[in-house]
Amino acid sequence: MSSTFGSIFKISTWGESHGVGVGVVIDGCPARVRLSEEDIQAQLNRRRPGQSDIVTPRNEEDRVEILSGVVDGQSTGTPIALSVRNKDHRSSAYDEMQHTYRPSHADYCYDAKYGIRAWAGGGRASARETIGRVAAGAVAKAVVQALYPELEVLAWVQQVHGIVCPVEPQNVQAATVEGNIVRTADAETAERMAAAIREARTRGDSLGGIVACTVRNCPVGLGDPVFDKLEATLAHAMMSIPACKGFEVGSGFSAPEYTGMQHNDPYYMEGERVRTRTNNSGGIQGGISNGEDINMRLAFKPTATLMVEQDTVTDAHQEAKLKGKGRHDPCVLPRAVPVVEAMAWIVLADHILKQRTTQID
Amino acid sequence: MSSTFGSIFKISTWGESHGVGVGVVIDGCPARVRLSEEDIQAQLNRRRPGQSDIVTPRNEEDRVEILSGVVDGQSTGTPIALSVRNKDHRSSAYDEMQHTYRPSHADYCYDAKYGIRAWAGGGRASARETIGRVAAGAVAKAVVQALYPELEVLAWVQQVHGIVCPVEPQNVQAATVEGNIVRTADAETAERMAAAIREARTRGDSLGGIVACTVRNCPVGLGDPVFDKLEATLAHAMMSIPACKGFEVGSGFSAPEYTGMQHNDPYYMEGERVRTRTNNSGGIQGGISNGEDINMRLAFKPTATLMVEQDTVTDAHQEAKLKGKGRHDPCVLPRAVPVVEAMAWIVLADHILKQRTTQID
Amino acid sequence: MSSTFGSIFKISTWGESHGVGVGVVIDGCPARVRLSEEDIQAQLNRRRPGQSDIVTPRNEEDRVEILSGVVDGQSTGTPIALSVRNKDHRSSAYDEMQHTYRPSHADYCYDAKYGIRAWAGGGRASARETIGRVAAGAVAKAVVQALYPELEVLAWVQQVHGIVCPVEPQNVQAATVEGNIVRTADAETAERMAAAIREARTRGDSLGGIVACTVRNCPVGLGDPVFDKLEATLAHAMMSIPACKGFEVGSGFSAPEYTGMQHNDPYYMEGERVRTRTNNSGGIQGGISNGEDINMRLAFKPTATLMVEQDTVTDAHQEAKLKGKGRHDPCVLPRAVPVVEAMAWIVLADHILKQRTTQID
Amino acid sequence: MSSTFGSIFKISTWGESHGVGVGVVIDGCPARVRLSEEDIQAQLNRRRPGQSDIVTPRNEEDRVEILSGVVDGQSTGTPIALSVRNKDHRSSAYDEMQHTYRPSHADYCYDAKYGIRAWAGGGRASARETIGRVAAGAVAKAVVQALYPELEVLAWVQQVHGIVCPVEPQNVQAATVEGNIVRTADAETAERMAAAIREARTRGDSLGGIVACTVRNCPVGLGDPVFDKLEATLAHAMMSIPACKGFEVGSGFSAPEYTGMQHNDPYYMEGERVRTRTNNSGGIQGGISNGEDINMRLAFKPTATLMVEQDTVTDAHQEAKLKGKGRHDPCVLPRAVPVVEAMAWIVLADHILKQRTTQID
Repeated sequence: MSSTFGSIFKISTWGESHGVGVGVVIDGCPARVRLSEEDIQAQLNRRRPGQSDIVTPRNEEDRVEILSGVVDGQSTGTPIALSVRNKDHRSSAYDEMQHTYRPSHADYCYDAKYGIRAWAGGGRASARETIGRVAAGAVAKAVVQALYPELEVLAWVQQVHGIVCPVEPQNVQAATVEGNIVRTADAETAERMAAAIREARTRGDSLGGIVACTVRNCPVGLGDPVFDKLEATLAHAMMSIPACKGFEVGSGFSAPEYTGMQHNDPYYMEGERVRTRTNNSGGIQGGISNGEDINMRLAFKPTATLMVEQDTVTDAHQEAKLKGKGRHDPCVLPRAVPVVEAMAWIVLADHILKQRTTQID
Repeated sequence: MSSTFGSIFKISTWGESHGVGVGVVIDGCPARVRLSEEDIQAQLNRRRPGQSDIVTPRNEEDRVEILSGVVDGQSTGTPIALSVRNKDHRSSAYDEMQHTYRPSHADYCYDAKYGIRAWAGGGRASARETIGRVAAGAVAKAVVQALYPELEVLAWVQQVHGIVCPVEPQNVQAATVEGNIVRTADAETAERMAAAIREARTRGDSLGGIVACTVRNCPVGLGDPVFDKLEATLAHAMMSIPACKGFEVGSGFSAPEYTGMQHNDPYYMEGERVRTRTNNSGGIQGGISNGEDINMRLAFKPTATLMVEQDTVTDAHQEAKLKGKGRHDPCVLPRAVPVVEAMAWIVLADHILKQRTTQID
Repeated sequence: MSSTFGSIFKISTWGESHGVGVGVVIDGCPARVRLSEEDIQAQLNRRRPGQSDIVTPRNEEDRVEILSGVVDGQSTGTPIALSVRNKDHRSSAYDEMQHTYRPSHADYCYDAKYGIRAWAGGGRASARETIGRVAAGAVAKAVVQALYPELEVLAWVQQVHGIVCPVEPQNVQAATVEGNIVRTADAETAERMAAAIREARTRGDSLGGIVACTVRNCPVGLGDPVFDKLEATLAHAMMSIPACKGFEVGSGFSAPEYTGMQHNDPYYMEGERVRTRTNNSGGIQGGISNGEDINMRLAFKPTATLMVEQDTVTDAHQEAKLKGKGRHDPCVLPRAVPVVEAMAWIVLADHILKQRTTQID
Repeated sequence: MSSTFGSIFKISTWGESHGVGVGVVIDGCPARVRLSEEDIQAQLNRRRPGQSDIVTPRNEEDRVEILSGVVDGQSTGTPIALSVRNKDHRSSAYDEMQHTYRPSHADYCYDAKYGIRAWAGGGRASARETIGRVAAGAVAKAVVQALYPELEVLAWVQQVHGIVCPVEPQNVQAATVEGNIVRTADAETAERMAAAIREARTRGDSLGGIVACTVRNCPVGLGDPVFDKLEATLAHAMMSIPACKGFEVGSGFSAPEYTGMQHNDPYYMEGERVRTRTNNSGGIQGGISNGEDINMRLAFKPTATLMVEQDTVTDAHQEAKLKGKGRHDPCVLPRAVPVVEAMAWIVLADHILKQRTTQID
């Protein structure tokens, strides 16, 4: 059940780094949503390797094929299968890893769990798994925007190592984010972040950071009380992204700094619309969207693959040394941005469809 | 679907603050687990109101009744229904709230979502809903410890407003935590936290903080790749607790401070056992437990109910003033500790049962 | 997971024959559906023991209590918990059955599956489990009729042993069915069926039969292609009723008697409405309702509890003799009628809610 | 959610008759099960068109490709994606059907449900959808037989129109069934059935019948009480097969002919094993397997596509005439046999894995 997500808009991803390919089946997409391979490809292009000098040079065009569920540019309501064939996989670069566990990677845990693993390139634990998410996210976006054309999901790199982008969430522009290779919210910070990433790579080291994500023009009423609160399903979605170590919404981990008087968001009327003067709630109250911007932040650890020698053990439980080979991202954040957006779209699509079953009217 | 959680060990909670009662049905508990009302009651007693002078004085004994699924002190494998009747509910204290939304509460969002709400005492959004979680958590604990007697889940209040408990996770003792009314990890910090909570209450204000939780002696191999990673399901569980604004595991939001060389956890052998020298991974790699302590932290906002006048709006969309009445916790953290532990037990029970379906052997 | 059913309108039943009680939690009922204990009680009264001389004399009033999810006579959208306390259980009548398996009952299989069972009165395998279904069915009916007031579900006893009720499905009247103790579709057949049941009881024997069920004025478009076809989910629901051995829809097991030319249902226009001239499809084509009556039939075996001595074995695997004690139905069909209707309402409510997520419009 | 089935061994099928292809993703297959494309292909070959003169001559080799989840001939525990490309699709044969509904097909209902359909060749409602089932069934069989090597699932054509195969279920041999093109249980009956099918085809007509299926050497204890009874999940699985109109287990629709004394299956000891002297229960009691053969029967209607002119309506709601074109099976039963077996394997694999979570021991 590990690779299925969602309750109505349900996705099942499949595929390994060095296998035939990767893909996703979407079961529960409503009928007559406009969809094209171009829309999906555009998102995959934002995630693909080799797009700049600060990401992995693995050369994959990641060309998506729609296998089912779409006719004449519209969804049919039946499952949408999407696949991407792997091209540039060089398993030989991984030979050593067949028996020697990479520190802070999934190798040891997969072996312990399953007694077997597709070891080449990380197999199922490879970041290539996120291709299915991004492809499904493009479909989810089409569903959401068919119903709420104004709804916008926007993620950006807010921090790389110690470098913080100072732009406030409400001022971040999509065009700016896509206009720099780091996908941060202003060009000057992007330069400094890119330099830091290049410097880390030179040392064989890697960097982590923070991705922020905001949802604008979200309708009121999304999210279910108790276990499927909007923030809980978003946390589930985001914490399932490889390398993500933390999730917060609204005031998040700074909430304790406030007292209740400082933290509560007073309501007021803006014309016919109920608004809050502050947004420490992050757009969600009682697990349900209140119409304000949904502001989230995700912490990513530095890439575990390093071009330096590290202490580790083998699958025969002998201590050993291992030095990373192959082609890797010295910092995953620029390519994580479309993955974070995809997961947000998927969660929103699911809640929007569920909301249609909530009232008799 | 909002009130059901889990894939094999599945719980469905029900009930409102001022209705007949609250409870839970557990479907998927294995047979022949030793269970008694006393074990469940012991956990509910840790959560119940009125247990000290820093929590709400609402007088509820929260007496649990096992309605089904247990004979002769053992589970039968069929659904376990647990219920607690409400006793001391004074709806009159809430009359004003029938039409006036409490800031940073769920009132407005429930109305927007459903067009109706059980307004008295917060209805379904009341913290009384967590009774079902704690009761189910006691059953989950029995399941887990029947299989892994050494496995321990321990939560404690690590921070209240600006006061931080300095004890390291691996040194926290359950007896110390239960030995003070704040449920923090040392007695001296407890005094200062309690004083701060009393001071806030005097002003009609409230405080938030951090609850930490550690899982010790967890078997290797729990958690599913991709969407049901152990940290993702834990995040889902924890972020569904009322007032929780953030979740992190291992290095969490401090991960960006490290470079990859600093962050990776080198493997070594400790006798027959694979260990890591550091634990920035927080006991989880690739979404799967590696046998090290699972360290989590949850941020809680200050209680939204305040005994001061606040700006708000009514359900007729008129601006209004509202001052909290009724009996409330000036700080939810001491009573959140057993809820956090319960959610961890529930997630672990589910993953432990799932793990039994993972290999043919 | 055994006791949970449905994907959006989701029910979880609990309880044993001789335990505290039985009940159900409904998660996913839309908000603002009119509901009262009286509506639910009316259905339970049709199912309760002691209602005539041809059913078990166990004296249970089966009084339902709404524990949550309803305020001011309307659903709130949050879980609806319903419970019925057991009253007249005489476990002593079952002492012998603690160790001796009743033939064609669940005793042996429960022991083999779980290693334990609530043996008194059949425990979870007792027909009292169907109380939760009937209560949930009453709620499902309210949901369906809030949206489709003309939609009608009508079940009746079409056959008892060799006695067949000749009334065609389209001519069956609810008032006639409720007007006789057998719940068959005409009064004269009812007399003969009742006499046969009394005669079987006198001999300590029991009878089976056929329950037919028709759904009138069903909207077009319910049911999902592939696995959740309307007939597949109905079959799942109906075959889960104790003692049900077969399910058919439309032409059913007589389909092979037709050739394709005879079996196909030609379309024609009746005003604006697409109709079929015959209804061998039973109102479902490609798994989806076509607006014609949905006609189903269910085969029920004769009650397994007999007042004669039978060969069996003990839980120590010794051969033994057993003679039924306690109070039992010599024919379950009259009381199965409301259970069949309940399961149909539950399936329809679920599909109707799902259908709201199927199109963007 | 329509195309996903199973709770632990979960399959999602996708694909349309005249699209790129069809396939399935299996999520929840345990690790280290021996699997090869050959094993899967062998089952697909039993289902493929063109295998004899009594089935459709559409020329599809239905070559399966394993896209993920298998390394070195073993499952890895991660999703197994299987796909088959469509080859010989001639959409032109279906031009007329774009706007004219085929009687007793899914065309009208799909349009009513979704407002759109992949009309060519029946799209998602085509029998080609069952390729995903058969492929997944081959994987399920490998899972089941890895744990229970003696467990056997065997289906055969028991009846075509009025011709009944007289061989008793316990005497049916797999080799005999595979040894004739009808897949019935003796050669002489096969001749007569084949002749009847050819005769019907000559007239442009079609025939239905009965497929029987038996499960031998099933372990005791499979199936869950209440809603997921073994017979209920089997009914769900089987009634989801296109053209299936009825399902029965054990005595089935002949149960009413018996009295309780005649129908009950007395227990006795056969060495250490609990057996029943008769098997009217069909190997299932209380929803749980008792170790006796599980005997099922499925009714199939005659193929809806006829080579004669029929009355129908268009999607503009005009009355019209339509005559079948394209290549079709005059009787689906020979090719339904591997589909029925596949669904049985899938249900059994799911219950066998679930059973591992049922007891603590």
